Amino acid sequence: MRLVIVGGVAAGMTAASRAQRHNPDARIVVFERGDWISYGACGLPYVIGRQVDTTDDLVARTPAQMRARGIGVRLRHEVTGVDAQAATLTVLDRDSGRTVTEPYDRLLLATGVEAVRPAWAHTDLRGVHVVRQISDVQAIEITLQHARRACVVGGGYIGIEMAEALHARGLSVVMVEQAPEVAGRMLDPDYQRRVRAELEQQGIDVRCAMGVVGLTGKAGQVTGVQTEGGLVRADVVIVAVGVRPQTALARAAGARLGRTGAVAVNLRQETSVPGVFSAGDNTESLHRVTRRKVHLPLALGANRMGRVAGVNMAGGDARFPGVVGTGIFKAFGLGAARTGLTQTEADALGLRAHSVDVSSTDHAGYYQDAHPLHVRLTGEIGTGRLLGAQLVGAVHSVKRVDVVAALLHSRARVPALFESDLAYAPPFSGVWDVLLVAADRLMREV
Amino acid sequence: MRLVIVGGVAAGMTAASRAQRHNPDARIVVFERGDWISYGACGLPYVIGRQVDTTDDLVARTPAQMRARGIGVRLRHEVTGVDAQAATLTVLDRDSGRTVTEPYDRLLLATGVEAVRPAWAHTDLRGVHVVRQISDVQAIEITLQHARRACVVGGGYIGIEMAEALHARGLSVVMVEQAPEVAGRMLDPDYQRRVRAELEQQGIDVRCAMGVVGLTGKAGQVTGVQTEGGLVRADVVIVAVGVRPQTALARAAGARLGRTGAVAVNLRQETSVPGVFSAGDNTESLHRVTRRKVHLPLALGANRMGRVAGVNMAGGDARFPGVVGTGIFKAFGLGAARTGLTQTEADALGLRAHSVDVSSTDHAGYYQDAHPLHVRLTGEIGTGRLLGAQLVGAVHSVKRVDVVAALLHSRARVPALFESDLAYAPPFSGVWDVLLVAADRLMREV
Repeated sequence: MRLVIVGGVAAGMTAASRAQRHNPDARIVVFERGDWISYGACGLPYVIGRQVDTTDDLVARTPAQMRARGIGVRLRHEVTGVDAQAATLTVLDRDSGRTVTEPYDRLLLATGVEAVRPAWAHTDLRGVHVVRQISDVQAIEITLQHARRACVVGGGYIGIEMAEALHARGLSVVMVEQAPEVAGRMLDPDYQRRVRAELEQQGIDVRCAMGVVGLTGKAGQVTGVQTEGGLVRADVVIVAVGVRPQTALARAAGARLGRTGAVAVNLRQETSVPGVFSAGDNTESLHRVTRRKVHLPLALGANRMGRVAGVNMAGGDARFPGVVGTGIFKAFGLGAARTGLTQTEADALGLRAHSVDVSSTDHAGYYQDAHPLHVRLTGEIGTGRLLGAQLVGAVHSVKRVDVVAALLHSRARVPALFESDLAYAPPFSGVWDVLLVAADRLMREV
Repeated sequence: MRLVIVGGVAAGMTAASRAQRHNPDARIVVFERGDWISYGACGLPYVIGRQVDTTDDLVARTPAQMRARGIGVRLRHEVTGVDAQAATLTVLDRDSGRTVTEPYDRLLLATGVEAVRPAWAHTDLRGVHVVRQISDVQAIEITLQHARRACVVGGGYIGIEMAEALHARGLSVVMVEQAPEVAGRMLDPDYQRRVRAELEQQGIDVRCAMGVVGLTGKAGQVTGVQTEGGLVRADVVIVAVGVRPQTALARAAGARLGRTGAVAVNLRQETSVPGVFSAGDNTESLHRVTRRKVHLPLALGANRMGRVAGVNMAGGDARFPGVVGTGIFKAFGLGAARTGLTQTEADALGLRAHSVDVSSTDHAGYYQDAHPLHVRLTGEIGTGRLLGAQLVGAVHSVKRVDVVAALLHSRARVPALFESDLAYAPPFSGVWDVLLVAADRLMREV
């Protein structure tokens, strides 16, 4: 049985490993159009910020390691076409320029996302970058050799991480965001503002509600970002305005896309085309709180989908039970995390949702170095069901969002959180962990 | 209706507040034999260690604040007897020496625990202390004015916290523990050893498997601890060998004690005597994993019991659904946490339990300042039920024990943990949080 995987990063390589483990006799080959496989793309901003030494550190497994396990890896091989009737792929060897036809018995599309480049970013100017791949970081490093002023376009978590990284490298940083606030898709407005306040306090010049018109350049080098509010001078421009699932191959294979624009799959990661699987950032998943299909291109979900696809491709039977929309990021001294639905999201879905806010400290208030920790907990009026949580506070304190994430998975009600026997000692929390305080209040209001 | 509460610390004052809120017309009076109410006893070691400025910071509510809410508080009033037939208490005013009889309609016994003082610690020598109350800390501070060498007897979490505190104050510290390892009741042996290693590395001289024979003194001042292994010279001796529920009044009232030795109650915190409630550290609670009654004198449980008792005393109907045995402590740069059952505890109960161990890092290994984090996850063979977790690692990383605690509350199986959508970004965890890695392995082994 020949299992072919297109894309060798998170979902693709996880699938390859799982398929190999499940069926050691299967012939497995991975086509990756880039120069690296199995790297942690989430770590890229931290290489720029030098919290990670080199991009090499992000690589979990090399092609040689995979080959030693009997998994074929072809780097710099781009799959340009698929014929699902014939069960063949058209593959371009980017080095030789030759194209060959490759057969498959089962196919996994793990093509991921590409960074959105608005029309104004379609330019040959040097110094304009997205942050998706290892090669992007290498290109940014070259730009930084002569850069003093940075403009980050986009205030999502990648924009925020890049703003921090460039600031750490000594550049002055302007962040330009079209939406009214930063972290727009992650948090409710109050919590977005807390993140912006931290960015501003640390020296980032944040300009929200400001669209970008174009770029200026001189001698082929970018010199600024033309915004609705005037020119932002910059030697390096980071474009971080979102990502889009890479679905060309799925469409060519005749696979159905979902309403989100990503590839539609069942819980076994099967597309609408027999024998063709899809996993990772190019793929929809089930949101367990809303029971709707969502496109949440995040690393853990991609890895999970890859595991499931790998087992199933190899003849097993695994299911991906879905996500609850957990996310987390660091903005200088602040951590921000969310899971489930924000109030904004719940409202947009027409749910009868209600939120409570608790501002406390990361550990006992009387214990040294207590830092603010703000929690919003959201529940469904009438049913008392937990809908979501948002935490913004000291970096190390926001991972406790996981408590709510775990409960959301089983569609728990608010009292289940309140009754939980959470750990207490003064260096770790108050007697009543802030999540319990929030649950106590929310319980009485939904 | 006259509601009388004996003991004004965690459970007692919480009950008073809740009762008052539930029934503003009730007459509520609290008798506290000490000089303070409503203080965080868990913070006492940190006052010695100077992570907390003064004992005043530990006081959540003063008598004046309670009286302003209509709750009577009588400090330095010791309840010395109870007549449940007559529904009266005998109360000694420790200042005047007078004894009066006080009637009650409903009575709450929130008498807490007392520190165990072994026979050898029954001595008049100055410099020998337990750590239970604010007055203990004041006495220790006086001793510390002329102390250079400390001996901490007992390697439980209070002993560990005190060893760290005294070390922070510049004393040389010897810890003597009768059991083979420190943290004996909290963790399995491997995890106990990690805690001991940290203590030793930080400069604590830890002597385990060593009994204490007696104390030596000179001119009324302690000079050392005589152990089975020889004399440990010390100017200050901290006796932290455990606590014992204060049940004299409960027994006098005719209330049944449980097998644990603490007061037996139902889920409404009612004792076997009508009209008499018990809550807090003197009281048993239900362990939701084992369905057995346990005596776990910890702050959160005490507060929860106080809430429930307060509502019920005032005519409401609240239930305390029990605990899952969560605990956490700090030992220098290490945090240690546990919830549910250890393998040792599960074995002692005759459960078919199995544990897996995962050693990882607190956040992505490639991200700066990654510290070790060790997790043991325990499940039940056959049913796949989660039984417990132990975490030892960087201080801020072990609070994620709460994820398992929340799931234990609802008797979840291991796959429910594995499937949870936990938060990931490189500064916070690996893509697969260490709890997920552990659950993945355990799932396949139970």
